[in-house]
Amino acid sequence: MPAAVSPLALPLPELPPVGGVRLGAVEAGIRYRGRTDLMMAEFAAGTTVAGVFTQNRCPGAPVDWCRAALSGGRARALIVNSGNANVFTGHAGREAVKATAAAASGLVGCPARQVFLASTGVIGEVLPLERLTTALPALHAGLSEQGWEAAARAIMTTDTFPKAATRTARIGGEEVRLNGFAKGSGMIAPDMATMLAFVVTDAKLPAPLLQRLLSQGVEDSFNAITVDSDTSTSDTLLLFATGAARHPRVPPSGGAMLRAFRAALFELLADLALKVVRDGEGAQKLVRVDVIGAASRRSARRVALAIANSPLVKTAIAGEDANWGRIVMAVGKAGEPADRDRLAIAVGGVWMARQGSVVPGYDEAPVVRHMKGREIEITVDLGLGAGRASVWTCDLTHGYIDINGSYRS
Amino acid sequence: MPAAVSPLALPLPELPPVGGVRLGAVEAGIRYRGRTDLMMAEFAAGTTVAGVFTQNRCPGAPVDWCRAALSGGRARALIVNSGNANVFTGHAGREAVKATAAAASGLVGCPARQVFLASTGVIGEVLPLERLTTALPALHAGLSEQGWEAAARAIMTTDTFPKAATRTARIGGEEVRLNGFAKGSGMIAPDMATMLAFVVTDAKLPAPLLQRLLSQGVEDSFNAITVDSDTSTSDTLLLFATGAARHPRVPPSGGAMLRAFRAALFELLADLALKVVRDGEGAQKLVRVDVIGAASRRSARRVALAIANSPLVKTAIAGEDANWGRIVMAVGKAGEPADRDRLAIAVGGVWMARQGSVVPGYDEAPVVRHMKGREIEITVDLGLGAGRASVWTCDLTHGYIDINGSYRS
Repeated sequence: MPAAVSPLALPLPELPPVGGVRLGAVEAGIRYRGRTDLMMAEFAAGTTVAGVFTQNRCPGAPVDWCRAALSGGRARALIVNSGNANVFTGHAGREAVKATAAAASGLVGCPARQVFLASTGVIGEVLPLERLTTALPALHAGLSEQGWEAAARAIMTTDTFPKAATRTARIGGEEVRLNGFAKGSGMIAPDMATMLAFVVTDAKLPAPLLQRLLSQGVEDSFNAITVDSDTSTSDTLLLFATGAARHPRVPPSGGAMLRAFRAALFELLADLALKVVRDGEGAQKLVRVDVIGAASRRSARRVALAIANSPLVKTAIAGEDANWGRIVMAVGKAGEPADRDRLAIAVGGVWMARQGSVVPGYDEAPVVRHMKGREIEITVDLGLGAGRASVWTCDLTHGYIDINGSYRS
Repeated sequence: MPAAVSPLALPLPELPPVGGVRLGAVEAGIRYRGRTDLMMAEFAAGTTVAGVFTQNRCPGAPVDWCRAALSGGRARALIVNSGNANVFTGHAGREAVKATAAAASGLVGCPARQVFLASTGVIGEVLPLERLTTALPALHAGLSEQGWEAAARAIMTTDTFPKAATRTARIGGEEVRLNGFAKGSGMIAPDMATMLAFVVTDAKLPAPLLQRLLSQGVEDSFNAITVDSDTSTSDTLLLFATGAARHPRVPPSGGAMLRAFRAALFELLADLALKVVRDGEGAQKLVRVDVIGAASRRSARRVALAIANSPLVKTAIAGEDANWGRIVMAVGKAGEPADRDRLAIAVGGVWMARQGSVVPGYDEAPVVRHMKGREIEITVDLGLGAGRASVWTCDLTHGYIDINGSYRS
């Protein structure tokens, strides 16, 4: 029984073609029935690529493959399957990755090292490789510039809605486009999540510059979200630049010419990342945690994550209870510099606690109203310094238990 | 509506008197109705005391009080209330602690610094001090050597059963007794938990020696359990030695004469700690995680805690799914040295995965049977070194959400 669509879902935007890329998806029957589970993108010759990956010490075979392939800086194809993560599958997993890359490179006519791969789904089961390679030729034959929605849908696992975003920007007066799509719902935590995200632009940018932009952009987007504190073995975010746009040459340093592009990219990454949280398993509320006044930015982020990952804070939010006592607990458990008697806490913009106790005359009514909404804002001022950070999460509900107590059955 | 008693509950053992201590409990009406919520113990003159406390940076006023009082090494009284944690209550909280200690010291006839205090319950609400001090004289008048069960019941909050343990040991040929009782159910994580535990022995031991024993004993007991990864602001474990037993003088180093006593104390601490996990909020299964082959003991413990705290592992156990893929994920997310291709995982003693993939010919049947039981055993061999650690936790169920989504209402 598929889960109901998240009440926090946003509609899929219209994704225009991006020069230099064609996409598509098919039903390969890897695990699911009656839905697509294999997507492919083919990129124009000369496409550059950047990537960031899970920090989990037990990554899947596709992550190992992509990390190695990335050193070439060039990409001609992307193959992603859902239903099976090809993680902890040993020799068979490595062979499956090699065979998939070989099959795609034959169809596209490129070195295998220019084929990028990702898999998402169950861990520890051997990928049914032949179903995948059997489906590839027809998939390749059907690629189109309009394939974005199909691609976004094919990579879903426990996702309840497809996630995509689009932006435009100008480089040297010429318009360039950025389209992206992502999946992720549970096992979401920095760095990063059971999270796959793919962004394609028609800008022409050298791979090292692309990598710098992506590594910066991920900080306040995919590395600032958490659903359940569990870090996937498969997290993959790839950024492809086809070079089809006709803007002037960008210097290796990027510089002022890239300002608008960088802003558009960062916005798109944040858009995709928030959509992942909006589809957090069982999520009924989107929660933003702002920590200010911390000893440092790093410290602020740790405190924000301790709050965002606290099961007691998350269940209180699910129960629409502005239980700031649990927020105090979570601040204290982070182990970061904190002084109970300087701490201030606001929910929905209303300061409830200040200087180590409840605010005199505190009126709960506006906070109770805020807690009944879909979007919850928690602000913690540590009163120590200028460090600040924001993290997004969702509440912890019966839906999370339902989904994860019976995922394999 | 009170939650059903945990299916993992154990019966309360008969607690014999311990020389030098009298206990009791009353209904002070602090928060609950129709149940006791205030307990007191009075100790003989000369009683020594040791303690360990929460590492949370935002501790409650009673924790601050006890930390300071501990430097004297002497105790004559213990006062514990449930229903209100007196945490994040600022000046009023500090005054409440002082006034309670003053009232008790008047009744007992001792310095206020020999009164130890603990509070558990809601955070951030001012303790209704007058109810507490009003109830104290009658409570004190009714203390008895038989008051153990009453004491164990009065300190419960979301606990579904009272928790106590008793042991005997010999010191220099003379029998000594140890009785202990504890509370804790949610907000349980090292170091330590919304966990209060009090142990009394009639042994005669100097305070510094008592402290060394307790600090060692906590490592494999209260610091090896986790329910939800949330560390309370109130955790307090106190060990009192009344000196009523007539054993020969123990040298300051303890030495061989204390071997049996130390073993009995450590056993009693582990007994109490496991009872806390057995009453984990919503717990249906008790889970033991053994990590072996780690680079160090510290590393083993961190990996064990990553597994024990993973919402995805815990929900899989609730669903009776031996989902070792999620265990791989949790090992990898710990950030400790781990080599995917050396990793081995067993559930219920059956090795499912070894050297980076599923064991050839793996038969799930005995594991499926094990998962249907009440006590689950997970073993992870990292294959790197000699470090090992064990941690106990429980599954994550709908019950946890029920209890914590509506605690204050």
